[in-house]
Amino acid sequence: MRSLIAELTVIAGSAHVLSEPDVVAGYATDWTRRYAGEASCVVRPGSTEEVAAVLRACAGHGVPVVPQGGNTGLVGGSVPPPAGWRPAAGPAAPAAAAAPVIVSARRLAGLGPVDLAAGQVTAGAGATISGVAAHAAAAGMRYGVDLASRDSATVGGTIATNAGGIRTIRYGPTRAQVAGVTAVLADGSVVSDLSGLTAGSTGYDLAQLLTGSEGTLAVITAARLRLHPAEQAGAVLLAPAGGMAQAVGLYGQIRVGVPDLLAAEYIDGAGLDLVCRITGLRPPLAGQARAYLLVEIAGPAQAAAGSVDLNRLAAAGLPDDSAVETSERGMAALWAYRERLTESIAAAGVPHKIDVAVPVGRLADFRAGLDETIRDAGAGPAEIIVFGHIGVGNLHVNVLGPDPADDRVDIAVARLAAAHGGRVAAEHGVGRSKTGWLSWSMPAAQISAMASIKAALDPAGLLNPGVLLPG
Amino acid sequence: MRSLIAELTVIAGSAHVLSEPDVVAGYATDWTRRYAGEASCVVRPGSTEEVAAVLRACAGHGVPVVPQGGNTGLVGGSVPPPAGWRPAAGPAAPAAAAAPVIVSARRLAGLGPVDLAAGQVTAGAGATISGVAAHAAAAGMRYGVDLASRDSATVGGTIATNAGGIRTIRYGPTRAQVAGVTAVLADGSVVSDLSGLTAGSTGYDLAQLLTGSEGTLAVITAARLRLHPAEQAGAVLLAPAGGMAQAVGLYGQIRVGVPDLLAAEYIDGAGLDLVCRITGLRPPLAGQARAYLLVEIAGPAQAAAGSVDLNRLAAAGLPDDSAVETSERGMAALWAYRERLTESIAAAGVPHKIDVAVPVGRLADFRAGLDETIRDAGAGPAEIIVFGHIGVGNLHVNVLGPDPADDRVDIAVARLAAAHGGRVAAEHGVGRSKTGWLSWSMPAAQISAMASIKAALDPAGLLNPGVLLPG
Repeated sequence: MRSLIAELTVIAGSAHVLSEPDVVAGYATDWTRRYAGEASCVVRPGSTEEVAAVLRACAGHGVPVVPQGGNTGLVGGSVPPPAGWRPAAGPAAPAAAAAPVIVSARRLAGLGPVDLAAGQVTAGAGATISGVAAHAAAAGMRYGVDLASRDSATVGGTIATNAGGIRTIRYGPTRAQVAGVTAVLADGSVVSDLSGLTAGSTGYDLAQLLTGSEGTLAVITAARLRLHPAEQAGAVLLAPAGGMAQAVGLYGQIRVGVPDLLAAEYIDGAGLDLVCRITGLRPPLAGQARAYLLVEIAGPAQAAAGSVDLNRLAAAGLPDDSAVETSERGMAALWAYRERLTESIAAAGVPHKIDVAVPVGRLADFRAGLDETIRDAGAGPAEIIVFGHIGVGNLHVNVLGPDPADDRVDIAVARLAAAHGGRVAAEHGVGRSKTGWLSWSMPAAQISAMASIKAALDPAGLLNPGVLLPG
Repeated sequence: MRSLIAELTVIAGSAHVLSEPDVVAGYATDWTRRYAGEASCVVRPGSTEEVAAVLRACAGHGVPVVPQGGNTGLVGGSVPPPAGWRPAAGPAAPAAAAAPVIVSARRLAGLGPVDLAAGQVTAGAGATISGVAAHAAAAGMRYGVDLASRDSATVGGTIATNAGGIRTIRYGPTRAQVAGVTAVLADGSVVSDLSGLTAGSTGYDLAQLLTGSEGTLAVITAARLRLHPAEQAGAVLLAPAGGMAQAVGLYGQIRVGVPDLLAAEYIDGAGLDLVCRITGLRPPLAGQARAYLLVEIAGPAQAAAGSVDLNRLAAAGLPDDSAVETSERGMAALWAYRERLTESIAAAGVPHKIDVAVPVGRLADFRAGLDETIRDAGAGPAEIIVFGHIGVGNLHVNVLGPDPADDRVDIAVARLAAAHGGRVAAEHGVGRSKTGWLSWSMPAAQISAMASIKAALDPAGLLNPGVLLPG
């Protein structure tokens, strides 16, 4: 290991090879503190060429590599496995020669000029999402992905996980923003296309293959990202609903009948009540409801007409006792009930947080069966709060009460999602926490094809071992 | 071969295994007639299960498979190689036991109900693009891809080639419409996810990997496709420009300043003149120009305001002598100058047609160097007509004069595109015609990674041999 660290020091400079145990431990622990692993050292390369040299050196020593962006993941995908971890049955994964090297993208944070004609920008993998957003906004453009971890989450990390967020119904997930990447393969070779050209086909789209691959196929060092015209906000509305079924129905009508939908969030009534109780916010509507639909509308139609067309909203079935706000302050006030959910739940206890996706048409059935499923898991009394991105079927199931270490709850919820044609993981990714669950929502042939691709591009199994694919 | 045909007959029924030489030759010849190959037979399976059984049978006999949709491709990707063809140096491609079996998707043409809440529809691989469009329109929705071959081109074929068309600047290419696929791998195993869930990550996105893979990794049998709200047309405008540089500049200003851009096409002045000469259409503007920009605007802002905002167009720099039409008839009349280009060029001779992509910011330099490049190719006097999708940098270079069989013209144009940071292939794909050219616009490591993926998923090299990857 010493000789590898010496090589890495030559490559990146001594200031950027960190091997103090305390410092390394900071990088090797994720921010949920549920996942902490063992790393030989942390290296922070300053260029794609340095990343390539680092990967060649690690490959030469048979030492695994864990790529790391902002380390804001929730499923253990951005930290190494714990000491003593060994692949279960990897086809070509012998025991590693030493604990992994964490390759941090923090120094790869450059931003190129905004290209207005192409509507694109080139960003380093270590640039933060808020940094990209501000850079785009200064040129009158908008980056399509926005999420709570925006100040820490990076371009590389969000591509590796295909991060979603609140604007996915308008702009798609990170995948839809990626017009190309530069990345280093396990053997240190570099693939790159930052031309921004996305029409047609000149072979397999490696940028799209790497999007969502969670660091198991390559280390992304830069990306060409799509930008969208910036649009002034139009309106935010909060509608009461009798439950998930009614919320889905209302969402569908608004989607078809009202242009410029920017965001649509579902909130369990119990969640909104909890926010009010914990934060002291006043209930937003006169009465209480079993569920709420929060919708933001913003775009060219509102700008052209000068205001949101309330007749269209009424025609779409918006209940009379809904709140509709068009001022910046009023819109932010309605968003607060959604944005303060996570802190309110955390204040009430240590929750199970299960991130699943269910087809929109099955959301009502899924929600209807959820309470009984969790009760039947046998982990004890539970308070259940569901919220999430209704238009893409991505729900966050929060369960308070059962021992946080008792994964029967998580398993029951993931299996219920799979039983409704859904997926055991969504915007949080698979990471280390859900690798064994993939087969619940995916044909065996698909997992096998994924393993073949992994073995083809990383035959020694050195990139992010234990993440995504079942050992 | 006889025993394979007998097996295929058991699988698909005798009516759907075609082995009459004349019939087979029809399927084995593309519509340009430049590519004609040899096939053992044609099979038209009626279900994914039948496709899987067909592929298992072919794999068992070591016989290659050529997947075929509408057979509208221009680069030889949808027909088998000529008799006697052998892979040059395929890593794992022994000489095939017999000529390929063409697997036609024509019978896999079913369309599921339009899912308004999800904004999606499930379509069989053999459904035509115009069929999907009509099905969507009946539910008030729009399919985002439209192209001249819409009545023959299929869902499967357009996914395999990541087809583009005239609305790519608004909706993206076919890739952006694909929310999932069902596909059969070379060994007959089936991968499938038609849930329509695209938020987040549960592993490598095989649907995105297959998009643009030109039938070399799997046979697509069905797809989950995104739909968009249907929007009434707003306006079509035709602006004169001093050349490509001015056309790009005007496009950039319209893109930023005017909402709801649906299409933007570049046309060489010589092309528009030729259309008028051949078809008898009257010149659209008072004077003649070196170049033209055709733009369509349609969307919620126009609908909300009741009309197109001419002040915005003026502010964006639209020349006074441009034509602006807002009636259905007037808009169609302006589109005719673009749509009748192909037939007009064909009436004037047999052209070289080179499909390339160049970053939008480099289009002007590319066009400025084109005439000299073609002259220097040494293939004789040439009439050059360039048109294409300016917003995504996808140009069709048509060259009349030089012997159609003299590929020095094609090579010179593709190399010029590569020299400007572009790609040697775009919406027509790579097919058989450009496999040797990939290295001009792609790092060797990328081609090598592609070959690794191909070898991982199709180790015997049975799927569409000779297409996409250099032998």
